[in-house]
Amino acid sequence: MSLVVVGSIAFDAIKSPFGERERALGGSAVHFSLAASYFTDVRVVGPVGDDFGDEEYAVLHRHGVNTDDIEHVEGGRTFFWAGEYEWNVNVRHTLDTQLNVFGDFQPKLSDASKAADTLFLANIQPDLQREVREQCSGAKPAALDSMNYWIENARDSLLRTIGTVDMVLMNDDEVRMLFEEPTLLKGVRRIMELGPSAVVVKQGEYGAALFTESGFFALPAYPLETVLDPTGAGDSFAGGLLGYLDAQGGADDDAALRRAMTYGSAVASYWVEEFGCERAERLTREEIDERFEAFRRMTTVEGVPAG
Amino acid sequence: MSLVVVGSIAFDAIKSPFGERERALGGSAVHFSLAASYFTDVRVVGPVGDDFGDEEYAVLHRHGVNTDDIEHVEGGRTFFWAGEYEWNVNVRHTLDTQLNVFGDFQPKLSDASKAADTLFLANIQPDLQREVREQCSGAKPAALDSMNYWIENARDSLLRTIGTVDMVLMNDDEVRMLFEEPTLLKGVRRIMELGPSAVVVKQGEYGAALFTESGFFALPAYPLETVLDPTGAGDSFAGGLLGYLDAQGGADDDAALRRAMTYGSAVASYWVEEFGCERAERLTREEIDERFEAFRRMTTVEGVPAG
Repeated sequence: MSLVVVGSIAFDAIKSPFGERERALGGSAVHFSLAASYFTDVRVVGPVGDDFGDEEYAVLHRHGVNTDDIEHVEGGRTFFWAGEYEWNVNVRHTLDTQLNVFGDFQPKLSDASKAADTLFLANIQPDLQREVREQCSGAKPAALDSMNYWIENARDSLLRTIGTVDMVLMNDDEVRMLFEEPTLLKGVRRIMELGPSAVVVKQGEYGAALFTESGFFALPAYPLETVLDPTGAGDSFAGGLLGYLDAQGGADDDAALRRAMTYGSAVASYWVEEFGCERAERLTREEIDERFEAFRRMTTVEGVPAG
Repeated sequence: MSLVVVGSIAFDAIKSPFGERERALGGSAVHFSLAASYFTDVRVVGPVGDDFGDEEYAVLHRHGVNTDDIEHVEGGRTFFWAGEYEWNVNVRHTLDTQLNVFGDFQPKLSDASKAADTLFLANIQPDLQREVREQCSGAKPAALDSMNYWIENARDSLLRTIGTVDMVLMNDDEVRMLFEEPTLLKGVRRIMELGPSAVVVKQGEYGAALFTESGFFALPAYPLETVLDPTGAGDSFAGGLLGYLDAQGGADDDAALRRAMTYGSAVASYWVEEFGCERAERLTREEIDERFEAFRRMTTVEGVPAG
């Protein structure tokens, strides 16, 4: 099985109450592909500039991520984002965004990527997401992420793109905003009317919820003593989730989706323990499996005793 | 077994996007005791004025709540609160607060209340909470709720009071605020260092989390199509939780606490379906049990298949 992800590749300047990094490897496609690499074969599609070199490729290659579809734009600079987290690291401020080569990105998938079994359209312009989906039309599941910016500025296109995928992953505020529905459940129903059979609602520090035609499932975030840097948490969650599903042959029954949610949550819980994707440098599959079991234990409701 | 709750008895003027009530029976002690009444014998302690009459007593009596310790202040008026919920009903604005008889409240427990097995100190001034705890020193578990106002204005007293109880129920922002700890887990540890063996963190639309010495447990809120009015959700949750624990003879092992969390969540999920405590008028124990089972189904992580 194989999984392809299309999205941003970036350098991030990150400041949190616990330290800072001036130039951390980041971007949704990077976080996603490193996380998914613990489960399946991953191909990453995205643009980089001249400042993206051997060191950065090596991070991806050490995780077995195929980088053939990374597009090197001569003379360009890689996407750059700067942000700062407050004392409560759940509150983030963007200080700077330089699109650079990402501004003119036109995704071109190789034949190998077009043939991928599973597709993740990370948070990019919805027209581009739809073009990628058309190039990779056989993938199942195909999933997308988006953000408030596209809901405000490209809503019609986003709705059309949602109609082409099996699964949507969005933040809870975005789900409410998309159709101006006050409850998540109503917002989710509207999304599913467009086509997707599953909606995964990311809730940051509160975990994530899964809505399918047959039911509802939710997981808390793993309780951590310290969160150094939440950057990439959502994308690493998506990577663990879709990586696991791809490894299962794209199973999309509720049981597989629940396990996938749990793997995604396990991966994300490690991700935020260090800056950027640094935790991935020494993260093992065994650690992920251990936390999967911890999630199972901490969500078990015991039966009611008789009488 | 029996449970006593000390807190506010109120009339609420509530406006939400789905309607309004000019004078709904409310107050933390009312919501709590109605919710707990589905599980055990409840006694309610709090002050009312001349405007609190037969109709209001009848609501409590229909649920078997013992009102002998309701203190009728001649010539006084009952506590009044007015609030409005935004389009997203998770955002609330207080429009008016009239303490009235609640401003001079000095809790006096009857012998029967002093002998209660379980005690809930709803959100009142922490000095008063401690005085009640001293009058009802044998109760186990004894639990308290509090709020940002007391953290800001009576922090030392609140910390002393926390040291006298077995369980603390607070909102997540309040747990962070209490010791200015950025993660819930660190805030919870600090609370437990004062004495309590369990901390229940209320997370509104995201559900609730339980921290004990041996572990962590969390439940999402039940996914609802429509939330008419969240007023009383936290107190009905606490009522279901402590009512169930009291009925179990005050069991405080993790399994009992997890079931209690689930019962609390089940009750609260009904509470918000209608205004104030109106849903309680026709809520049955069977419905609560049904939703308990729904919670179990929606939180089950299936095992990982071999291979």
